[in-house]
Amino acid sequence: MAQLQPVLVDGQWRPAKNTGAFSPLNPATRQPTGEVFPISSREEVEEVIEAAARASEALLGIDSEARARFLERFAGRIEARRTEIVGLAHTESALPVKPRLDEVELPRTTGQLRQAAAAARQGSWTLPTIDTKAGIRSFFAPLEGGVVVFGPNNFPLAFNSAAGGDFAAAIAAGNPVIAKANSSHPGTTRLLAEEALAALKEAGLPAATVQLIYRTDHQVGQRLVSHPLVGATGYTGSRHAGLVLKEAADRAGKPIYLELSSINPVLILPGALRERAAEIAAEFSTSCLLAAGQFCTNPGVVLLLKGAETEAFIGLIVEKFRAAAVGTLLGEGVEHNLGHSVAALQQAGAELLVGGAVGGGTGCSFQNTLLRVEGRRFLATPEQLQQEAFGNASLLVVADDEDQAEALCRALEGNLTGTLYTDRTGSDEALYRRLAPILRRKVGRLLDDKMPTGVAISPAMNHGGPYPATGHPGFTAVGIPASLRRFAMLQSFDNVRPAHLPPELHDQNPTGQLWRCIDGAWTEGNVPAKT
Amino acid sequence: MAQLQPVLVDGQWRPAKNTGAFSPLNPATRQPTGEVFPISSREEVEEVIEAAARASEALLGIDSEARARFLERFAGRIEARRTEIVGLAHTESALPVKPRLDEVELPRTTGQLRQAAAAARQGSWTLPTIDTKAGIRSFFAPLEGGVVVFGPNNFPLAFNSAAGGDFAAAIAAGNPVIAKANSSHPGTTRLLAEEALAALKEAGLPAATVQLIYRTDHQVGQRLVSHPLVGATGYTGSRHAGLVLKEAADRAGKPIYLELSSINPVLILPGALRERAAEIAAEFSTSCLLAAGQFCTNPGVVLLLKGAETEAFIGLIVEKFRAAAVGTLLGEGVEHNLGHSVAALQQAGAELLVGGAVGGGTGCSFQNTLLRVEGRRFLATPEQLQQEAFGNASLLVVADDEDQAEALCRALEGNLTGTLYTDRTGSDEALYRRLAPILRRKVGRLLDDKMPTGVAISPAMNHGGPYPATGHPGFTAVGIPASLRRFAMLQSFDNVRPAHLPPELHDQNPTGQLWRCIDGAWTEGNVPAKT
Repeated sequence: MAQLQPVLVDGQWRPAKNTGAFSPLNPATRQPTGEVFPISSREEVEEVIEAAARASEALLGIDSEARARFLERFAGRIEARRTEIVGLAHTESALPVKPRLDEVELPRTTGQLRQAAAAARQGSWTLPTIDTKAGIRSFFAPLEGGVVVFGPNNFPLAFNSAAGGDFAAAIAAGNPVIAKANSSHPGTTRLLAEEALAALKEAGLPAATVQLIYRTDHQVGQRLVSHPLVGATGYTGSRHAGLVLKEAADRAGKPIYLELSSINPVLILPGALRERAAEIAAEFSTSCLLAAGQFCTNPGVVLLLKGAETEAFIGLIVEKFRAAAVGTLLGEGVEHNLGHSVAALQQAGAELLVGGAVGGGTGCSFQNTLLRVEGRRFLATPEQLQQEAFGNASLLVVADDEDQAEALCRALEGNLTGTLYTDRTGSDEALYRRLAPILRRKVGRLLDDKMPTGVAISPAMNHGGPYPATGHPGFTAVGIPASLRRFAMLQSFDNVRPAHLPPELHDQNPTGQLWRCIDGAWTEGNVPAKT
Repeated sequence: MAQLQPVLVDGQWRPAKNTGAFSPLNPATRQPTGEVFPISSREEVEEVIEAAARASEALLGIDSEARARFLERFAGRIEARRTEIVGLAHTESALPVKPRLDEVELPRTTGQLRQAAAAARQGSWTLPTIDTKAGIRSFFAPLEGGVVVFGPNNFPLAFNSAAGGDFAAAIAAGNPVIAKANSSHPGTTRLLAEEALAALKEAGLPAATVQLIYRTDHQVGQRLVSHPLVGATGYTGSRHAGLVLKEAADRAGKPIYLELSSINPVLILPGALRERAAEIAAEFSTSCLLAAGQFCTNPGVVLLLKGAETEAFIGLIVEKFRAAAVGTLLGEGVEHNLGHSVAALQQAGAELLVGGAVGGGTGCSFQNTLLRVEGRRFLATPEQLQQEAFGNASLLVVADDEDQAEALCRALEGNLTGTLYTDRTGSDEALYRRLAPILRRKVGRLLDDKMPTGVAISPAMNHGGPYPATGHPGFTAVGIPASLRRFAMLQSFDNVRPAHLPPELHDQNPTGQLWRCIDGAWTEGNVPAKT
């Protein structure tokens, strides 16, 4: 038996205080990767939380330049060790080394860290607001206590709890991170945390600014997110586990940002099908089957209107699903859940068009799967037919007419994204104007004529949406600087003496590049001298 | 028996579908005001929610100018009916007509409505963000479904559920409001809702944009805040009732913004006492006894360091508390709870310096009360000694030394405000630098040398703070435009055709006065033409 991997607590890689252990599998071979990881005890978690709380206080005395330097050095170190990191991520996730891990996800990860560094240095994410007449000034400042990050299984690098989007946002905003590794890629997470620790030392940040544990039982997990000394939690993962954590955090009044599940409805209007069915069929199939469909923004439900073009379109995509190679899934859990969800959709009245069974690829896999259901049937049990089938599967819903299409839009739950395809000559315009306002309020991001996979790290991105896609419709997990404000508190200073104000709120703009709202106008200038 | 007052549902004043009734008392006489109000049934609440959801959708098609016009006309109508409104508010609350209700609170209320109108018209609260390279644009938009507002007892006008801060913010952001009157001033709320309905008609808004019910049982209240068709809830009131609602809303994934309770610690450092004890004693007594101390930001706990100056200071304020007239409380509930809280503080080890018994004023009243506890004792049971004694009472905590003062700061729960008094010559500076960073993270608003009562409606205000003062440390209930963003969702538009974008996100700035962040820079200009 391999030696138990250590945990990273308060700057030290040390033997875990564990209550058990687990061995991740290589999903391509279904064989253990050879590493064994601890399940941390409550005692260990308490130590981690206390060390993070001390780091949280120490970080108050350290300027944002040091945090920016850390994030940049960390990015550089990930690149320097890229072969090993990408290799282990491949072993643990079965995601292809090229292009996915090496050429797409690793650059996204380091790019994100550097964007977060720039945001920390620039500081405008804090929305400094100055009311000169009332003598009140405010900005967003770090939370008290560490931020807990639970990363998902499907991005071993870009959403990794020790290097991904939530991590970068929390650190850039001035918080220490308690990384809870995803159990499907703990080794990758360890490598990243090793580089993080080295970069912390180089940048002069408290060593407990990044800590790592691998797994806890449910009860200890609930303690973690609700502990009085914890600032907030970012969680991306399954709805069930997320809701268990949410309940504990809510009860303690601790912010928890969840990204739970999403079926990302795609509405293809009749004119678009008449105009370019083959093109859309290709886009849809690529989007749905890329990385075996294991994206939060995978198009899991497609809404079509009854008609000959729709039947032809369905024929096209069935063909493509049949012909496309079957990808390897992230693990046995994903394989099992996908089978379970597909069966449940069938039970609720969906008809299998292609696929539907385990296998077809290397290791953990499931046939490329399409299901179909009529609009009326969908409306009879909308909740059952909206369960996420995470992976290379999608449900086609065929509406009788425009009224039913509207009813289907109204029956949708909250989602990360919603997409409308319309023709270029305007024949779909009236229906767009009818459906888009309804869809708009169900989703965080609305797209025209473009599949939702691919989440740009843009200041205007919303990777969020109404419940149950997330826990609050006002926050995004992707997109800098908005994602930073999740891990911050609003601080107002009333009649506070100039010498007691933070630099961001001094009369003089501390850098000349900090955007501040002074008496209602945004400016990079100073507070005007009193006349 | 007086006739049951009607409810306002979907634009109609109609007889309630009620399960019971209640009769408010005049707290100055302990006699019924003569009006009787219904307790709404679940059926009624469902109708209200459905009408609000329809109004929420109808509001999408109505521009912000109409909302601004409504808020301004409503303000004008309140002023036109001020004598009657202020008169009934006085009868129901016993707050003085002058200066409080007529000269302070009513102008605050109408000023707030007009500020909200200006924010709706200007639109910069939506934080429009444009990324020209990625083709993604975002802004904050209204929620789907109505916003439920529970107003507190202590501001019958300025925080009234049918006219106050949450109401103004929700409407300005584009949401209909379901007002749940505070049971202590239902008549005042009815008068305000009458004017709101008239103003809605004048402005051409859907009649269900403002609805009013008076009371529900707990179960129906929980249904109200967790209903799938409700957008969010704003609640100001007691911690117990607030947490019951929070649990229901959280479970349904519905945002709920709570303002629960706060003891607003005031730290008076030794140099300040040496320099100006009499001045501070006067400020403190006025702040604590104004309106019988019935403010969310009442200074409920004062931290002092052991010494002769402190003893002299305590002597001064005891004298003032003894000498000051005892105000009338808002009702029998407040009177009862204040007695209960003072007794509980004594039970936890606090010593009574003055007051402590029911009576001393006209009608519902409680003697001006000061308690004292030593720092060590406070640290032994910090939770019991931090319960809010809402009203004209305060607890003085005397620390042995600076280390103990720091420990006391660390033991504080989340509060709306925290205050530090220091001397002007710098002798308190080192201790300020030690304590302020700790206090800063416990409170939404930090003050220097100024009592926390008086919450300016400033863009830089934070009337919020960490749990248990509120449910989330990132939001403020007072201050425009930030308070609007509570009642909004983030909407991102990815590759959306220009003709499908909302005006706020067009290339051309719709008014030339809308602040937008375009490619990282804030501007009132247009998106630059592509070169």
